[in-house]
Amino acid sequence: MAKFITIGERISVTAPAIRRAFAERDPEPILKRAKEQLDAGANYIDVNIGPAEADGEEVMQWAVKLLQETFDNVPLALDTANMKAIEAGIQVYNRQKGKPIVNSADAGDRLNRIDLAAANDAICVALCSCNGIAADNDERMAHCQNMLERGLSLGMESDDLWFDPLFLVVKGMQDKQLEVLEAIKMFSDMGLNSTGGLSNNSNGMPKHIRPIMDSALVAMAMMQGLTSAIVNPCDLRLMETIKSCDIIKNNNLYADSYLEI
Amino acid sequence: MAKFITIGERISVTAPAIRRAFAERDPEPILKRAKEQLDAGANYIDVNIGPAEADGEEVMQWAVKLLQETFDNVPLALDTANMKAIEAGIQVYNRQKGKPIVNSADAGDRLNRIDLAAANDAICVALCSCNGIAADNDERMAHCQNMLERGLSLGMESDDLWFDPLFLVVKGMQDKQLEVLEAIKMFSDMGLNSTGGLSNNSNGMPKHIRPIMDSALVAMAMMQGLTSAIVNPCDLRLMETIKSCDIIKNNNLYADSYLEI
Repeated sequence: MAKFITIGERISVTAPAIRRAFAERDPEPILKRAKEQLDAGANYIDVNIGPAEADGEEVMQWAVKLLQETFDNVPLALDTANMKAIEAGIQVYNRQKGKPIVNSADAGDRLNRIDLAAANDAICVALCSCNGIAADNDERMAHCQNMLERGLSLGMESDDLWFDPLFLVVKGMQDKQLEVLEAIKMFSDMGLNSTGGLSNNSNGMPKHIRPIMDSALVAMAMMQGLTSAIVNPCDLRLMETIKSCDIIKNNNLYADSYLEI
Repeated sequence: MAKFITIGERISVTAPAIRRAFAERDPEPILKRAKEQLDAGANYIDVNIGPAEADGEEVMQWAVKLLQETFDNVPLALDTANMKAIEAGIQVYNRQKGKPIVNSADAGDRLNRIDLAAANDAICVALCSCNGIAADNDERMAHCQNMLERGLSLGMESDDLWFDPLFLVVKGMQDKQLEVLEAIKMFSDMGLNSTGGLSNNSNGMPKHIRPIMDSALVAMAMMQGLTSAIVNPCDLRLMETIKSCDIIKNNNLYADSYLEI
């Protein structure tokens, strides 16, 4: 089995410093956060430029070139509601270290992100929801099936669709956690890849609890077959847990130094 | 679902201070370790007096009375190869906080520990091995079935047999870890309780890695349905992980203070 893939989430307009850096085309804060994440072991870097309605194409191309030129063609997830900006980013993207990831399609208004990924030989995160959270796994898997068929009909490999069950917040939806984990098992049983914004589960919890809860969840999700997650790779406990689960799953050969690699 | 049950493993003759305390009937080291484990959240305390061929009955009765009188009838696992010592311990055991656990039967020479548990209305750890490690899950489940039938035929409730898949050491048996985790899922799918000496997996690893590896494994095992484990409850990371998995599994209602409870 392949090792778990981490997508670093920390280059995002939700952080004021990063929002400003995108607006002012200031490389320094972006490169700093990218380096921190790569040093911590991130495989992909997510580039979330927000809605970016005005100058999204220009911003995305600038960010893709900046990151790939600085960090040896690091593979990227292109994350924005602006489809043209994703396309523009892919135009300047270097595939040497991996295909670009389109983040993200869903089974509703964003279904056409699958078309975009198919047309550009990209990986596509496929969120199993449609105008709101899926009521249950019947609905979740119907969305999965729809998006899978869409992608396959457009010539995509099934491996390039990374299904996202949508991790739900424990505070408020505690009784839905096992359902989300069961959905991951269903993806895995179908031979599909999966991913998701894992830390959503611990939203609203005291800060010191979040790494503890996220680590517990990622281990349970990896047991169910989760193949990737969008995470903060600077969360040491989380990364240690992911590396340990990769050992237990025999995805990576044990060595006493495995945590340092 | 019921909360995960932890059996504290630290009162054991494998520790020289405890071995000496049993030999000299010195309460202090035993009470100190019991208190540490109970303060850390252990549900049961394991009392491992070793082979105890000479004075096992006397030692076990002394230890059971000492611990239960000091700690409000704390429930205990009676752990020795000496069957008469287990029986003697049960004779003085107070069931107010839970049945005694016989640790342990297997499908080979120790099959008669099930008879002992049945005759004394005790819980029995049932190790799914027979003169050596099971070759695969077919063998593991055959042992499980044999022990289950033995217990049921003697009038035991199936809930009182806690099946132990035998956790295997990663260093040397890395490729067997998923098989052990699958066995736990099989127990769970049969509606059976399970337990085991979890930290066996990290034997021989550098000290700082063991809590990390054990925590990853316990989360994966709880996802598979493990209902109990024999652990060091003073391993904070492990206990935090167990409590978090109990939240994710909805076995315990979330509160911001859940780690302190």
